[in-house]
Amino acid sequence: MTSDGARRLVLVGGNTATARIDGISAAGAAPEVMVHTPAADLEIVEYGRPVRAPVVPVSPTGCPTPAVVTRAVRELLGFETLAVDAGLARPTDAPTVATGATTGADVRDAEAVPDADAAFERGCALGRSLPDDALAVGETVPGGTTTALGVLTALGEQPSVSSSLSDNPLALKRRVVDAGLAASDLTAGDATGTPVAALRAVGDPVLAVAAGLTVGAAESGVDVLLAGGTQMAAAAALARHAGVKAPLSLATTSFVADDQSADVAGLAADLDVELTVTDPGFERLSHPATDAYVAGEAKEGVGMGGALALADRAGVPMADVRDRLVAVYDRLVDEPPAP
Amino acid sequence: MTSDGARRLVLVGGNTATARIDGISAAGAAPEVMVHTPAADLEIVEYGRPVRAPVVPVSPTGCPTPAVVTRAVRELLGFETLAVDAGLARPTDAPTVATGATTGADVRDAEAVPDADAAFERGCALGRSLPDDALAVGETVPGGTTTALGVLTALGEQPSVSSSLSDNPLALKRRVVDAGLAASDLTAGDATGTPVAALRAVGDPVLAVAAGLTVGAAESGVDVLLAGGTQMAAAAALARHAGVKAPLSLATTSFVADDQSADVAGLAADLDVELTVTDPGFERLSHPATDAYVAGEAKEGVGMGGALALADRAGVPMADVRDRLVAVYDRLVDEPPAP
Repeated sequence: MTSDGARRLVLVGGNTATARIDGISAAGAAPEVMVHTPAADLEIVEYGRPVRAPVVPVSPTGCPTPAVVTRAVRELLGFETLAVDAGLARPTDAPTVATGATTGADVRDAEAVPDADAAFERGCALGRSLPDDALAVGETVPGGTTTALGVLTALGEQPSVSSSLSDNPLALKRRVVDAGLAASDLTAGDATGTPVAALRAVGDPVLAVAAGLTVGAAESGVDVLLAGGTQMAAAAALARHAGVKAPLSLATTSFVADDQSADVAGLAADLDVELTVTDPGFERLSHPATDAYVAGEAKEGVGMGGALALADRAGVPMADVRDRLVAVYDRLVDEPPAP
Repeated sequence: MTSDGARRLVLVGGNTATARIDGISAAGAAPEVMVHTPAADLEIVEYGRPVRAPVVPVSPTGCPTPAVVTRAVRELLGFETLAVDAGLARPTDAPTVATGATTGADVRDAEAVPDADAAFERGCALGRSLPDDALAVGETVPGGTTTALGVLTALGEQPSVSSSLSDNPLALKRRVVDAGLAASDLTAGDATGTPVAALRAVGDPVLAVAAGLTVGAAESGVDVLLAGGTQMAAAAALARHAGVKAPLSLATTSFVADDQSADVAGLAADLDVELTVTDPGFERLSHPATDAYVAGEAKEGVGMGGALALADRAGVPMADVRDRLVAVYDRLVDEPPAP
């Protein structure tokens, strides 16, 4: 088996109109800058700071993007990364693999991902062709827990997801998903065994590509670690409904695991997915890079839980991760992107 | 100063119609597969083998692409790389930064690079925005020495370039360039001080982006190493004609330095560019990965000379580079890409 030091982290990024629904996402300081979040996240992981994107993504209260954590772990472990463009709405100077996927529509439209079939197939092809024995797969897509909820509901899986907000707007998400299902002439469970139908109706292009990647890689004998919370659990669900029987694992943060509204453990158990939870010990310091996580914000994203798990497996103490995270954050604050 | 271990290698790849001129290039086993060479080269550097590209680039006699050498050094040193799409004619699964540049026309057309201005400016912007203190810049573009000859001629610099063929078809290249200049209503030296005019008339999109990158980075105080032979010398010439006064260096292979038809040392001296020549000692083994270099083929490309210089500066013995090169090559032969 490949050691985790050789595991490539694939980050799939994109945008959707779903993220513009008021109150859905905290993946940006304000709606008009949230559109830059995935591009900025990919640049932070690649370069340590935004390069072309005009913002460092923060939540409305100032919580920095989990990309900072993933970058910190990458600096410590030196793993290879691969950014995949699954419908980015803004150009990025992070190098990306193109998929042809376009920005997702609103989940309440009749088709949330009109090109779901092509995006899923492109993900499969990429998953089959990458040379690695082990991959980790993460995401960056604002509004992604809502589309994950949509997909889980359409597949007939446990319809619960986490949130980047400390107070999960689950009732709002459920209303939005219900409207999306109705617009697609579906009810809960109607897409059982037809993952592309779930994606097309109420998913997002990032989930389509990430699920395809998982299917293509797992079917080629690659060890796939889903690096994230309930969104990546939804990717696992899509892979299971596509017929993947291979072992799959999900590595998330303690912040997601502690989110009672999400029940990620129950979801993982339902999907026969091994769950790893890593606690970065953020309560041990008081710093703007970590305080909001302790207060329940952000929680996960951009592969954070997977990166923490890789650090833990490599024997890197979480104190070192925290130190590096503070260093990456301080660099971001010292060298803000040009306006 | 940044140590060379922290120098990012930027590889600019693209295609042109010039490469289809019979007898111009050895960057492919045959004209119909040469179009895949830049995409395959970028994949070899990123992954160790082609992933989406259907071929391992070899010359008509079987000499493997210099990308194999650059990959070998990357495996030994672990430097970061960045692939830039400057008009790739075929899709690649190597992650790339988009530039908007399109595949170059034939140098004998009135405009070889109609969008030269935009490609050059995009290169400048990328060079200004990358966070690195030190960059190396290389290229992969079949037919690139002919367009380099075109640019050097138009700028009024020493009109001599190397070749991937053991017998440099310099007379053919000069006829082609003369036809290109005539089609553009230019004579030798007419583009002195106007690098974009030289690029538009008789250049290629890779040179446009690479020269822009050099200008943007050098003007931002970044230490720029041009990783290659006479093509990268042409990029240096374009940067000088754009007014760059900062120190520039060129790191090439002994195979280019020994090419009497090219006189890379004279060209570097004319341009006030510090020249580093690294000899990988290929004559010390007899192997299909190296024999053709000893016989005078390929010589350079895909950052090879720069990668060798970085290895040398890092104290890595050339014997280790050769061992790793053989290992990379053997993997390529054992796991050929799908047809």
